[in-house]
Parts: sequence; C-alpha cells; structure tokens
Amino acid sequence: MSDLQSFQAFLYQNIPLVENMQLKLQNISEHQLSAAAPLSPNINDKFTVFGGSSSALMTICGWSLIKYHLEAHEAHHDVVIHQAKTHWTKAQSDDLIIKAKLCNEHNWEELAQKLNTRNRTTKITVKCQVYNQNHEVCSTMTGDYVVLKQQH
Amino acid sequence: MSDLQSFQAFLYQNIPLVENMQLKLQNISEHQLSAAAPLSPNINDKFTVFGGSSSALMTICGWSLIKYHLEAHEAHHDVVIHQAKTHWTKAQSDDLIIKAKLCNEHNWEELAQKLNTRNRTTKITVKCQVYNQNHEVCSTMTGDYVVLKQQH
Repeated sequence: MSDLQSFQAFLYQNIPLVENMQLKLQNISEHQLSAAAPLSPNINDKFTVFGGSSSALMTICGWSLIKYHLEAHEAHHDVVIHQAKTHWTKAQSDDLIIKAKLCNEHNWEELAQKLNTRNRTTKITVKCQVYNQNHEVCSTMTGDYVVLKQQH
Repeated sequence: MSDLQSFQAFLYQNIPLVENMQLKLQNISEHQLSAAAPLSPNINDKFTVFGGSSSALMTICGWSLIKYHLEAHEAHHDVVIHQAKTHWTKAQSDDLIIKAKLCNEHNWEELAQKLNTRNRTTKITVKCQVYNQNHEVCSTMTGDYVVLKQQH
C-alpha cells in the first residue's frame, strides 16, 4: 500500500491533470488496480461526470496497472497508450470508483526479464471501468498499451 | 468570435477540467471547430502529452462544436458522448492544436427545429484530431454524441 502511495505521488508530480482530477489509487493486485476520484473536480455543466474526465481517469488507471508492475520488476520501460474503444453508458452524479483489469494474464517477472534481456516491444490490453456509488457501470474503456524501450 | 469566447467562459465555469487543461477555443464554422492548449498543464512523465489530456480535449471540442450550434439555434438540448474510438499515433512534446469536424453535414437550423418541435433524439458523429506545431496528427478520436431533451 505504501508503494502504491509512492506511485501516486509520482503521478501527481509528473502528470498535473492526475492531481487536478484528484485520483486516489487504492489497491493493486497482479491483475487489477482500483481507485477513486471525487465528483467535484470532474463535473460538467449537467452536474454529472465529464466524459473527458472518465476517459482520462481510465487511461491513467490502465497505464498505472502496467507501469507499477514493470517498475516493481526493474523493467524501466515506457508504457504508452496506443488505441482505445470507450463507451459511456450511464450518467453519473456521484463520486467515481475506477477499476482497471488485465484482459490477459501476465507473469510480470517473466515479462520484465524478456523486456530487459531482449528489449522486446509488447502490447498489453486493459479493460477499465468507472462505477457509481451503487456499483453500476457508467463507462468502459478497452485500451491497448505498448511497452517499449525508454525513448528519453 | 466574441460568442465563442462566451462559450469558452461557459465551459470554464461549468467543467473545471477544461480550465485545468487551459483549452482555448479559436474558430468555429458550421462544420469545424479549432482550438489550442499548452503542453505544460497536459504533460506526462515522459515530457510529452498525456494521452488522457488529448482524449479529454478531443471529447470537449467535439461536444462544443455541436452544443455551440444547437444553442445558437435555440435548441437547449443535452449533448452527451456515447462512444468513441481513439488512436494515439505520435508522441508530442509541444503545444496542442485541436480540430473537431462533423463526419456528416448538418443543417443546424433544420435540426434545431426538429429537436424543438418533435423532441427527437439524434446522433452526431465528430472526428477530432490533435496536431503538433508541425501540423502532424498525434491523436484521432471518432466520437458519437447523442442529442436529447434536457434531463435536469
């Protein structure tokens, strides 16, 4: 948990929009990350969640699930989002619960070793969802992320 | 132009993330809206544009193109994003140029009349792109927006 708090501090320091949205990382397992965000910084003119906020929150949660595990296994590669399909299915007027789940299982240790020894590029697909406080799905994003050798 | 500045003020007052991203609406025609945003509030850990910022900026520019014209024709309907496909094709390390274009032509006056007299729901598809300062496309979103009777 303290590792996840450090990771959140890294996000806040490096990606100002994540701090603006007040994303709070809550739990992480091998396959899933869960997080929360309050309505007020993410609200729109209809007093519901701004669609751009929910897509940005899902984008960073999917990215964080991958980046966190790669860093934990000393694979300091870049992770970039390549493409996504997003559906906004329900208007939401309360605080956000965000979950990011791997679409396929990955052995992070093996993957990190492969990346470090062969410098391979790999694609990881994550399904991210935003829920309201009644645990109803309000938006869903399926995103493909690319892991590649650091460019900077 | 002053109308567009009033519309931008409406966005800033109602959607805090739009102000955080420092979106500046620049020009609007029947079929296209153009805008800009600086890199610094939209940066990531790699000193390039955060993918969540570009998707949120494209989401609001597509929405603004529709909402602006409907309001101008007295159709005070809600406009909500329903689904989108997004591609991030090029890392970007300078200020953003954003363009939103209608995928099909719409006669706003006729559409507003139909919406006001029959309260029909309609779908409008917008292609939004983010360009760098060399006018290269860095990300593309094709989004379907739904126009419906006000819910609040």
